[in-house]
Amino acid sequence: MSTNELTYGMVGGDVKAFIGDVHRKAIGFDPRCHLVAGAFSIDPVLHVLTADTYHIAKDRRYNDYKEMAEAESKRKDKIDFVVIVTPNASHYQISKEFLLHDINVICEKPLCFTLEEANELSKIAKDRNLLFAVNYGYTGYTMVKIAKEMIAKKELGKLLSVQIQYAQDWLIDTTDSTKSAEMGKKIWRLDPKASGISCSLGDIGTHAENLFRYLTGDEIKRLVVSTDKYGQALDLNSNVIIQCQDGLHVGIWVSQVAIGCENGLKFQIYGTKGSLNWNQQDPDTLYYGLLHEPQMKLVRGSNYLKKYEASSNSRLPSGHPEGLYEAFANNYRHIISYLIKKKGKEEPTLEDCDFPTIADGLDGVKFVHKAIQSATEEKWLEY
Amino acid sequence: MSTNELTYGMVGGDVKAFIGDVHRKAIGFDPRCHLVAGAFSIDPVLHVLTADTYHIAKDRRYNDYKEMAEAESKRKDKIDFVVIVTPNASHYQISKEFLLHDINVICEKPLCFTLEEANELSKIAKDRNLLFAVNYGYTGYTMVKIAKEMIAKKELGKLLSVQIQYAQDWLIDTTDSTKSAEMGKKIWRLDPKASGISCSLGDIGTHAENLFRYLTGDEIKRLVVSTDKYGQALDLNSNVIIQCQDGLHVGIWVSQVAIGCENGLKFQIYGTKGSLNWNQQDPDTLYYGLLHEPQMKLVRGSNYLKKYEASSNSRLPSGHPEGLYEAFANNYRHIISYLIKKKGKEEPTLEDCDFPTIADGLDGVKFVHKAIQSATEEKWLEY
Amino acid sequence: MSTNELTYGMVGGDVKAFIGDVHRKAIGFDPRCHLVAGAFSIDPVLHVLTADTYHIAKDRRYNDYKEMAEAESKRKDKIDFVVIVTPNASHYQISKEFLLHDINVICEKPLCFTLEEANELSKIAKDRNLLFAVNYGYTGYTMVKIAKEMIAKKELGKLLSVQIQYAQDWLIDTTDSTKSAEMGKKIWRLDPKASGISCSLGDIGTHAENLFRYLTGDEIKRLVVSTDKYGQALDLNSNVIIQCQDGLHVGIWVSQVAIGCENGLKFQIYGTKGSLNWNQQDPDTLYYGLLHEPQMKLVRGSNYLKKYEASSNSRLPSGHPEGLYEAFANNYRHIISYLIKKKGKEEPTLEDCDFPTIADGLDGVKFVHKAIQSATEEKWLEY
Amino acid sequence: MSTNELTYGMVGGDVKAFIGDVHRKAIGFDPRCHLVAGAFSIDPVLHVLTADTYHIAKDRRYNDYKEMAEAESKRKDKIDFVVIVTPNASHYQISKEFLLHDINVICEKPLCFTLEEANELSKIAKDRNLLFAVNYGYTGYTMVKIAKEMIAKKELGKLLSVQIQYAQDWLIDTTDSTKSAEMGKKIWRLDPKASGISCSLGDIGTHAENLFRYLTGDEIKRLVVSTDKYGQALDLNSNVIIQCQDGLHVGIWVSQVAIGCENGLKFQIYGTKGSLNWNQQDPDTLYYGLLHEPQMKLVRGSNYLKKYEASSNSRLPSGHPEGLYEAFANNYRHIISYLIKKKGKEEPTLEDCDFPTIADGLDGVKFVHKAIQSATEEKWLEY
Repeated sequence: MSTNELTYGMVGGDVKAFIGDVHRKAIGFDPRCHLVAGAFSIDPVLHVLTADTYHIAKDRRYNDYKEMAEAESKRKDKIDFVVIVTPNASHYQISKEFLLHDINVICEKPLCFTLEEANELSKIAKDRNLLFAVNYGYTGYTMVKIAKEMIAKKELGKLLSVQIQYAQDWLIDTTDSTKSAEMGKKIWRLDPKASGISCSLGDIGTHAENLFRYLTGDEIKRLVVSTDKYGQALDLNSNVIIQCQDGLHVGIWVSQVAIGCENGLKFQIYGTKGSLNWNQQDPDTLYYGLLHEPQMKLVRGSNYLKKYEASSNSRLPSGHPEGLYEAFANNYRHIISYLIKKKGKEEPTLEDCDFPTIADGLDGVKFVHKAIQSATEEKWLEY
Repeated sequence: MSTNELTYGMVGGDVKAFIGDVHRKAIGFDPRCHLVAGAFSIDPVLHVLTADTYHIAKDRRYNDYKEMAEAESKRKDKIDFVVIVTPNASHYQISKEFLLHDINVICEKPLCFTLEEANELSKIAKDRNLLFAVNYGYTGYTMVKIAKEMIAKKELGKLLSVQIQYAQDWLIDTTDSTKSAEMGKKIWRLDPKASGISCSLGDIGTHAENLFRYLTGDEIKRLVVSTDKYGQALDLNSNVIIQCQDGLHVGIWVSQVAIGCENGLKFQIYGTKGSLNWNQQDPDTLYYGLLHEPQMKLVRGSNYLKKYEASSNSRLPSGHPEGLYEAFANNYRHIISYLIKKKGKEEPTLEDCDFPTIADGLDGVKFVHKAIQSATEEKWLEY
Repeated sequence: MSTNELTYGMVGGDVKAFIGDVHRKAIGFDPRCHLVAGAFSIDPVLHVLTADTYHIAKDRRYNDYKEMAEAESKRKDKIDFVVIVTPNASHYQISKEFLLHDINVICEKPLCFTLEEANELSKIAKDRNLLFAVNYGYTGYTMVKIAKEMIAKKELGKLLSVQIQYAQDWLIDTTDSTKSAEMGKKIWRLDPKASGISCSLGDIGTHAENLFRYLTGDEIKRLVVSTDKYGQALDLNSNVIIQCQDGLHVGIWVSQVAIGCENGLKFQIYGTKGSLNWNQQDPDTLYYGLLHEPQMKLVRGSNYLKKYEASSNSRLPSGHPEGLYEAFANNYRHIISYLIKKKGKEEPTLEDCDFPTIADGLDGVKFVHKAIQSATEEKWLEY
Repeated sequence: MSTNELTYGMVGGDVKAFIGDVHRKAIGFDPRCHLVAGAFSIDPVLHVLTADTYHIAKDRRYNDYKEMAEAESKRKDKIDFVVIVTPNASHYQISKEFLLHDINVICEKPLCFTLEEANELSKIAKDRNLLFAVNYGYTGYTMVKIAKEMIAKKELGKLLSVQIQYAQDWLIDTTDSTKSAEMGKKIWRLDPKASGISCSLGDIGTHAENLFRYLTGDEIKRLVVSTDKYGQALDLNSNVIIQCQDGLHVGIWVSQVAIGCENGLKFQIYGTKGSLNWNQQDPDTLYYGLLHEPQMKLVRGSNYLKKYEASSNSRLPSGHPEGLYEAFANNYRHIISYLIKKKGKEEPTLEDCDFPTIADGLDGVKFVHKAIQSATEEKWLEY
């Protein structure tokens, strides 16, 4: 293995699991990084099947994450990072274990359930100078990154208003009185023990919050929130008004019961000079309004976007669609570059650092807590 | 003039004014109603020019609204109703004058500035058994009426969530520091003396509020609001969360500084069985989501919509666009049918009553006051 | 009646007929023109009902078009023009009658069935210095007129390629073997006696042909055509390739059996510097591609369009939709201005002349004949 | 390497080349297949760099394709297939070499320039029982495959009309008189020696032709074509009317000079019962019109699509976009399954066979020849 290459391990993500495979494929876009170890499943058959599929050496197939952290940490050729794609309730324990064994962590979202846990993990990572990335995959899209750059370059002028929607309908049957009780039990997302204090705000609200912060670089000053549970234990639909440090208001609506919405994450950003509109389900397109001019349609890969540094994230020519795998792959490309440079004692560039970290995860946990508190207390809440 | 026909007069609306002409053209779609009197302008030249253009008899060209109300009320063939299309600050006085002379009133929006005035006008109209319509033109679109009917027929099931946006950009230059002071003086919308306590909420927020109430038939229980003034005296951008009597939350965003938005009034309505999406700038189309089914595109004039009574509002075959004139004309058609039946002591049908009245105007005034109060006091406000 | 006003009569167009009413409403947008005479129906009840509805004087209600042409031509206050909205097979006879009585004619499309008839009518109108307009309504849209102006001003550079589609589905049941025989009898459009030699090419192909010629100002040099009859007597679907005088190729597809298409008239025009895309079902929007730049969305009524003279056709502010009535009304506004100036011996402006005339009707008849001949002979045909 | 796995080699596709990398990433989606050999570039530095990047063993890094075919054919663990991603003019020679060494071939499009060559390659592959796939990547999209299945299941009824567009603008500068001569020299696509007899028809027309044949399963009976060269040696824009064996007409327009079109491959298919519309730039969506019903929007990954076998090609849940890599990966998945079963003497399923082969390549070559002949002779041409 050359010094310009990395190896990684995975906890969770057997061949039948969904999100682990997305991570593997996204990392697979980059020839600099290879899967060499794993504790893929508590089901031994699935574990072995997965290890076989990916040609994992016998001595790096681990029965559980503790054994893996322990064993890998002692190897001279230990993995450069671990990808954690287990059920949410285990993220905290597993992340902590690997950090304490000095292994960099990339953890699926959400990071954990309490602010205390989040802060603890953050501190450990910082103290040990470890990378701790959290997977907010949607900020990996090229057009989101170009939007961020346009805003940073003041091409929209001073921001005046932001609207974000994240609407899905996969939990709609919870509102059907004949199915709601059964679904409340069946779907872990609706179970406070597995999901923490929130469903919609935790699952997708954090993506909306992360997206607006990624784009604007602004911080929340206070917020007011309404939630709807429709008879379940946790929120399935929420309206949020955020006021930022510099006065900007951000309206957010998230829902998991919005019939006809597959994965409708959209932003609208308005400034004194221009505006941007984007829809995750049409990720290669960014609509750009310019003061007193016709609205323009910016298409990823076009020559007129080459002036933006973020256009380097584009892989295919304009009109040849990229999707979610490629967004994930963009984040991983930066993570891999960052870790290779760190290993080689080289200074990472700003672009290398363009991936979501535990700081984002921590903000997400805080957002969920504050939002649920505002909804419960029915008032504006300082952040 | 047959008993199945009506005559009307107009206050304001000279040939150079914009909205008066829209009313005339909309009424002109109906051969049952004719313009016969007017006090069209305080500029005598424009007044005469307008009267000439519309062949108004010499004795029914009035110098002012008081003279007009007085003289018309004494005629045997007095006008059946007056259309008031003067600047907003005069709506209250002129409406009152005609009501007190027992003439039905159709008044441009907004009705007036204070709840007291609104209640007073409402009481006069009720006491004298007069029609008092207020022009919320957007509910005149056929597809809005079909949406209302679908909701009333429970085709969406129980409503779960409503989102409304009304975004324009015509006041964007107020946020330009080099132009803001001048615009604050030049644009009457930004002057509290001419506009009352609100700009964006009063001008377009009331349309959003009217639209949601028209569609759902629901009432506001409480709300929380943020407003942005960007250095002007009145709000130009607002976020609103409404909770209705039955618990439904409605998120509203209105803005007059949203670059790239011409007249972007949109609704999204989600229920347990279906959803509806509509955009005023594409008014003939209604997107209909059905539980576990592909989203459908409903097009005005199509045979599959004939099962809805509201499809009778459609004038042209599917694919032949109708616009704002036709929406206004739909409201006027109902107003005219209502008044003809009232005149003939006939009972109006439910469809005849399908137009916005002073009750809507009154609700709008209340909404603006409560919303501004919530924004000022920074809290949820009972309605 | 002032000298700046016109009167007109109508043949056909009783209160139950569709297209006559569209003409009346479109003319009704212009206060300079009034309906004063008519032979509205061969059904005496409908005729009287229509005359009553529009307050037609007793002596100007005519039993038939011959009586009407005769009587009106003798009046001092004779109508300025007649609108002919009868079934197609009668257009030729009725038009000729009014022309021979020196009355200007506005005739619904199609003008007539044979080139001989078309040429004869054209000659009479020319010899007698009469206006003979033919209703190609779609060129009345403001954005179509702006497109024409942009092309004329070479904003697209030299034209390279044009594609036009006109797809509807109202005749789809003709392809259902259980209904086709019955429909072939029931629908006059499918009957050669009523429709002439073509259905789809005559009914909608002529609009496509008229639109491309209106936009480009180019002339057909030769064409090749395929038609599909699906068992009926006349074509219901056609593919056309046109080569123009200067070499430009135009691809046209028209269909009346395209499920899901209401009235899908669309053009795509590509030049060396820019491109334009337009869809009749979204008529206020024109997509403008510029060399090496992002595509722009031009919206009728926007300030950035004021540099085009054709923007004077716009009636409502941007974002307030206009539809087909307004497109017809634009054509009528020009017709009325033209006739008023002609009456006053004044020179009409270029804009006054911007309406479809018998020249367009004649071209349409020629196009249908050449297209059907090409399809029959299965070869490129010189024009 | 297990018997359920394959190895492959690549000719061309160094780390700086574009399309080779797309193939590698697409194959990389499938853990069953590994890159083990290559002749990546005639530039030795790039060749080594690429081989290093992909950890190619020293003895399987070849100086040229002849050496590679020779050496691999003698190995016991020889590659299961070769991917040829070299410049077009070399496809024929390289493909032939590997076939003659009994190695399966996946070749980039176009296959070759003459029908003779195409037939020769086809015969060799058949005689030696080798797989010869040709990369028509666009038929790999899940929604294209679902469209094909819907048509095969007669969900559209009998087909009535097909329209296909493939519009790009990357060669627009060839029409600029100040740049055209230079571009004619610089762009190999415009050079008959490198591209054969056609530019637009060969490069993108073949995709349109392949797509319509893939979807309908129909065969061309005759066609008529116009081409535009705008001063270059080869066609840049073409209109085509095809008549199929069963009478169906297909209209095709392809252009490489259509400003504002990135990679606009679209189909519209109309039958007696339904219609389908698809746009490659929004590949997860398929618009489905059903007789007398509202048009529906079908979204890849939705539960209501599970009834189609082709939905198994979907990887991500609905609303999580897939792009071109995933389309290529779908074709490769089938190729890999096919080859694994072939190796194991197992019968491949129909789904395993769902990838483009030399038969498609051969049809493409024929199409280009017939189309250019029709344009030259200016007439309908039997196929």
